[in-house]
Amino acid sequence: MTSSRATLVQVAERAGVSLASTSRALHGSGASAAMVERVRAAADELGYSPDAVGRSLRMKRTFQIAFAAADIGGPAHVEMMTAIHGELAPHGYRVVVLATGDTAASTADLVHSLNSGFADGMVLVPPRTDDLLADSLRRRDAPVVVVGRASGDHGADSVSTDSAAGIGRAVRHLRETGRRRIGFLGGPADSVPGEERRRGFDAATAGGGGPPAVAEAAAEFTVAAGEVAARRLLDRAAADGGPLDAVVAADDLLAIAVLRAARERGLSVPGDLAVTGVGDTELGRIFQPSLTSVSLGWAECGRSAARIMLDLVRGRGEGARRVRVEPRLIVRESTGGAAPGAAGDPAADTPEP
Amino acid sequence: MTSSRATLVQVAERAGVSLASTSRALHGSGASAAMVERVRAAADELGYSPDAVGRSLRMKRTFQIAFAAADIGGPAHVEMMTAIHGELAPHGYRVVVLATGDTAASTADLVHSLNSGFADGMVLVPPRTDDLLADSLRRRDAPVVVVGRASGDHGADSVSTDSAAGIGRAVRHLRETGRRRIGFLGGPADSVPGEERRRGFDAATAGGGGPPAVAEAAAEFTVAAGEVAARRLLDRAAADGGPLDAVVAADDLLAIAVLRAARERGLSVPGDLAVTGVGDTELGRIFQPSLTSVSLGWAECGRSAARIMLDLVRGRGEGARRVRVEPRLIVRESTGGAAPGAAGDPAADTPEP
Repeated sequence: MTSSRATLVQVAERAGVSLASTSRALHGSGASAAMVERVRAAADELGYSPDAVGRSLRMKRTFQIAFAAADIGGPAHVEMMTAIHGELAPHGYRVVVLATGDTAASTADLVHSLNSGFADGMVLVPPRTDDLLADSLRRRDAPVVVVGRASGDHGADSVSTDSAAGIGRAVRHLRETGRRRIGFLGGPADSVPGEERRRGFDAATAGGGGPPAVAEAAAEFTVAAGEVAARRLLDRAAADGGPLDAVVAADDLLAIAVLRAARERGLSVPGDLAVTGVGDTELGRIFQPSLTSVSLGWAECGRSAARIMLDLVRGRGEGARRVRVEPRLIVRESTGGAAPGAAGDPAADTPEP
Repeated sequence: MTSSRATLVQVAERAGVSLASTSRALHGSGASAAMVERVRAAADELGYSPDAVGRSLRMKRTFQIAFAAADIGGPAHVEMMTAIHGELAPHGYRVVVLATGDTAASTADLVHSLNSGFADGMVLVPPRTDDLLADSLRRRDAPVVVVGRASGDHGADSVSTDSAAGIGRAVRHLRETGRRRIGFLGGPADSVPGEERRRGFDAATAGGGGPPAVAEAAAEFTVAAGEVAARRLLDRAAADGGPLDAVVAADDLLAIAVLRAARERGLSVPGDLAVTGVGDTELGRIFQPSLTSVSLGWAECGRSAARIMLDLVRGRGEGARRVRVEPRLIVRESTGGAAPGAAGDPAADTPEP
């Protein structure tokens, strides 16, 4: 073990680079990833711990940012993680993936564990929120950026999407293309996305006259659960007020469940029934018919969160920023739009602002 | 800064747990994730560094394992990462995700960076392999488990799939179900999976009589590139030796490209044309018709690699293990099998051993 009184000069000598490069690398600004790695290794070997510089340097830097979500393999989280990694890696930061568990309590535990110093900050997608979690966010030592709905006054920076507004765009698009009887296939009502998207549908269809809107909720966001609920939705509507000519689904898997149920009943899409999803997933882009879907901008959320985090770990954060990423409707065959020119090529799609 | 001469007793006191629990937590065996986090935090605060114990404890433990792949958002890597996380988290290990870049040289750099000690080991999926990479693997300080084809004698443990054998199973299944004229839609020949799967097709169709096999390669593993190559494949075969009655595609996206090209030409699947993919992706399970596909066991690869890694970081590794995960053929509608009973439910599929 070497002395904990190593100096910046010794670190520069050990790393074999200039003093200026060493300083830049330790401040994480303007140095290449390779340089940061090299200088950090030298600093680690020497147990370098500067004590006459700013707060951010007095703290032990790990050059790691945690990304925490309930389902780290789900498409939304994979898109976010990839974007966060792409934004942070050039600055010499590594991404640590963590699972929050399904509850607000397990998420609060994870935020608390940040106090042990394993990462310089955390980008957190809370599956559920409550006062306990808000409290652990208020008492955090390291910066946290919350992605998704920010509950209560936790003082953390946040990046959020507005899936309720996105559902509103889908409803407006269907009305504008002549649909009159629009049903909703929702997800579990006790989940954040389930509740928000249902609220968006109710708001978009409130008033307006005509037969009342029909809605069913799937037990989970899967094609299998969606098919069961989609059959129920189509049958109930037909029995009470007349057949639907459009269904807004709360995500792309549920929308594909509606496409399957429609095929079972011999309904053509979009002729007899128009269908929209949420998430703009690869699945929806490639499916036949290709799926009109609300893009929530997951990659953009990840990039924004990463940029805020870089500011925070460099001590450039001020107050709690609240960034909102706007949803966009991508119109494809399932509501009468054109097929993507080249499947999987988002540039060929038609966004409707 | 506290003394670097803290003792195990002091760590136990600071953590507020028994000496036995402290020891277990620091050895990473039989302690809960929460306990490990707590004891590690106490050890970090005190700058505890035992110097009279085994090698694994003399080294600075980070309780982090790196997972490195070229495309960290791709379905194979997401399945592996999720499985690795699921295996390691209960033992108190975090997963750091890293991008290898596209070359063997950038991958070698990443292996070398492990020497700075940011992680206790690395699970590596090399996009390409060469002697330089093998050399950096031989000179590594920390354990590395290679997933995928292990090139040369690098001395690292490895977990590999056998996609060539998987393609062989698809060809056999098609023959057994009466197909006589089988074409191959491959991926880029200069990629590891592109080369291996083509080799598997050639081996499975060598000899046997009948018209010679027809093959085309897509420029990349995407539906768009696949459609271009699939049209070429169908046309070339029809013009020279007669129309195909089956296509083996090198992955699920390329197989879906074949389904689209078949629909364009009014060919029914599986009536006129049977189609198989590789990867057993959610896309293939949900597509209509659902896709027969070779499962390469990505999750199983991840779990195996993680278990080997746990042994290695605990000093229980001996020699270079080579685990092979066997491919399985999952038969669905695109070759005449039944639709999955509940879409997305793998248990409803029919594996063909």
